[in-house]
Amino acid sequence: METVLSSRGREVVIAGHRPFVIIGERINPTGRKVLAAEMKDGRMDRVRSDAIAQQAGGAHMLDVNAGIPAIDEPALLVAAIKAVMEVSDLPICIDSSIIEALEAGLSAYEGKALVNSVTAEEERMERILPLVKKHRAAVIGMANDETGISMVPEERLALARRIIERAADYGIPQEDVIIDPIAMTVAADPTCGVITLETMRLIRDQLGNNMTCGASNVSFGLPDRATVNAAFLPLAMNAGLTCAITNPLVPEVRRAVLAGDLLLGHDEYAMRWIAAYRAEVAAAKVAAE
Amino acid sequence: METVLSSRGREVVIAGHRPFVIIGERINPTGRKVLAAEMKDGRMDRVRSDAIAQQAGGAHMLDVNAGIPAIDEPALLVAAIKAVMEVSDLPICIDSSIIEALEAGLSAYEGKALVNSVTAEEERMERILPLVKKHRAAVIGMANDETGISMVPEERLALARRIIERAADYGIPQEDVIIDPIAMTVAADPTCGVITLETMRLIRDQLGNNMTCGASNVSFGLPDRATVNAAFLPLAMNAGLTCAITNPLVPEVRRAVLAGDLLLGHDEYAMRWIAAYRAEVAAAKVAAE
Repeated sequence: METVLSSRGREVVIAGHRPFVIIGERINPTGRKVLAAEMKDGRMDRVRSDAIAQQAGGAHMLDVNAGIPAIDEPALLVAAIKAVMEVSDLPICIDSSIIEALEAGLSAYEGKALVNSVTAEEERMERILPLVKKHRAAVIGMANDETGISMVPEERLALARRIIERAADYGIPQEDVIIDPIAMTVAADPTCGVITLETMRLIRDQLGNNMTCGASNVSFGLPDRATVNAAFLPLAMNAGLTCAITNPLVPEVRRAVLAGDLLLGHDEYAMRWIAAYRAEVAAAKVAAE
Repeated sequence: METVLSSRGREVVIAGHRPFVIIGERINPTGRKVLAAEMKDGRMDRVRSDAIAQQAGGAHMLDVNAGIPAIDEPALLVAAIKAVMEVSDLPICIDSSIIEALEAGLSAYEGKALVNSVTAEEERMERILPLVKKHRAAVIGMANDETGISMVPEERLALARRIIERAADYGIPQEDVIIDPIAMTVAADPTCGVITLETMRLIRDQLGNNMTCGASNVSFGLPDRATVNAAFLPLAMNAGLTCAITNPLVPEVRRAVLAGDLLLGHDEYAMRWIAAYRAEVAAAKVAAE
């Protein structure tokens, strides 16, 4: 199954038989005080430079979030999306929990965007899915509902199926729903990793949809998170994950995705692996000069 | 299925529901000129210090190989095994392609050893399996025969089954045969990784035996091998690999195994992960003083 996203100048195809897609997560004021302060003042320089840096670091798409408390989020999200479009031709993932912000962002964006996100809650689906259809976008469907996150993989699968069916009711094709099977930290419960992986396998084998997740959730609360995240990504790719909202500027993450593609047969003659290695060596030389 | 190995003072259990077992690979003169020269002269100081360092680095067993051309390998292997037994109580994996060396090593060893290795070649099985039975040892069975290494997972499975059946004919129980499904580099053929992983899943699901492999083979000929190996280990663990002959002194390898155990539910409350992190931080502090 192929999900096609686009900007004015570029198309990105997400599919299980293709290299993994990295959606850069940096343009998000949550937990980033300086960025939040600048965005609040309407200054978009850091948004632009984050877009450029993530594209250079290997991102294939860019997530854009403007979730700052007590501001006009629709207007700010539009301003951020426009700033990103000025400096990058990567397709955008429009990220908000405010429906009016998603609507404004979709209206401002030129291309086929990915909407982040809808849950299996009826009220959310009723409001967000018509917007996705109207703007011919794709959407991330989170496998949880008003009752919370189930620890039973089959129940998460059922929620994924419900979102896909409801999307179809609104005329959104199956390939335009990317499921988030939900990753949770293994610090609290050692079964969280295997439950997420089993959910992925079920969704891949029974539904076939593309999947994304907040991969770094698995290491929340632990030391050396980069190594845990790097070990999780190939495992998740092997279970059906085809894209992730993550930080391409973290070398461990970037390398884990490339190594996963290599080991899972998506990098013939290791050409991408070797090219990335050469680029890192060259960059290190420049940095040392 | 549980494979139990032992030394005079210690038992190691290899099983799918337990933490992964690292078999330290360093005591092997192949490609190590200084070690080879010292062993040839009968000096075992480096063998002893390699044993101590690998145990400190997290090895659960130690592979011992004395394969130097044109020497009395049986006598040298016995001397190396005795040297290791002087300084470490880890169970030993007796590693040789020379049957007389395996025999001498098994006679000298005190405990239940792992024999590395037998293939599915009738002539090898006829000579090695009776030795394994006589010394109540366990054995690694490589999934290849005189025709070479198949690229069809089902054919490797059939060879694994053949070794297990022939071992049973000699009175060796199934749990004392650890299968090596054979890892090959992805540099030459992008399908090598997925073929090995599929072979592992077949062996786990249809036979249930423990499995080991030369995990670092997957990166042969590539740059930044440690990262590729580190990405492969959790993938292989998830497909059924329960131990590996590898180098615990490489931080990426050690951390990948710990992260794999953590993500696959074999490290409750992340206690081993956190303890290993603290030990690394403490060691780095000592080194910096």
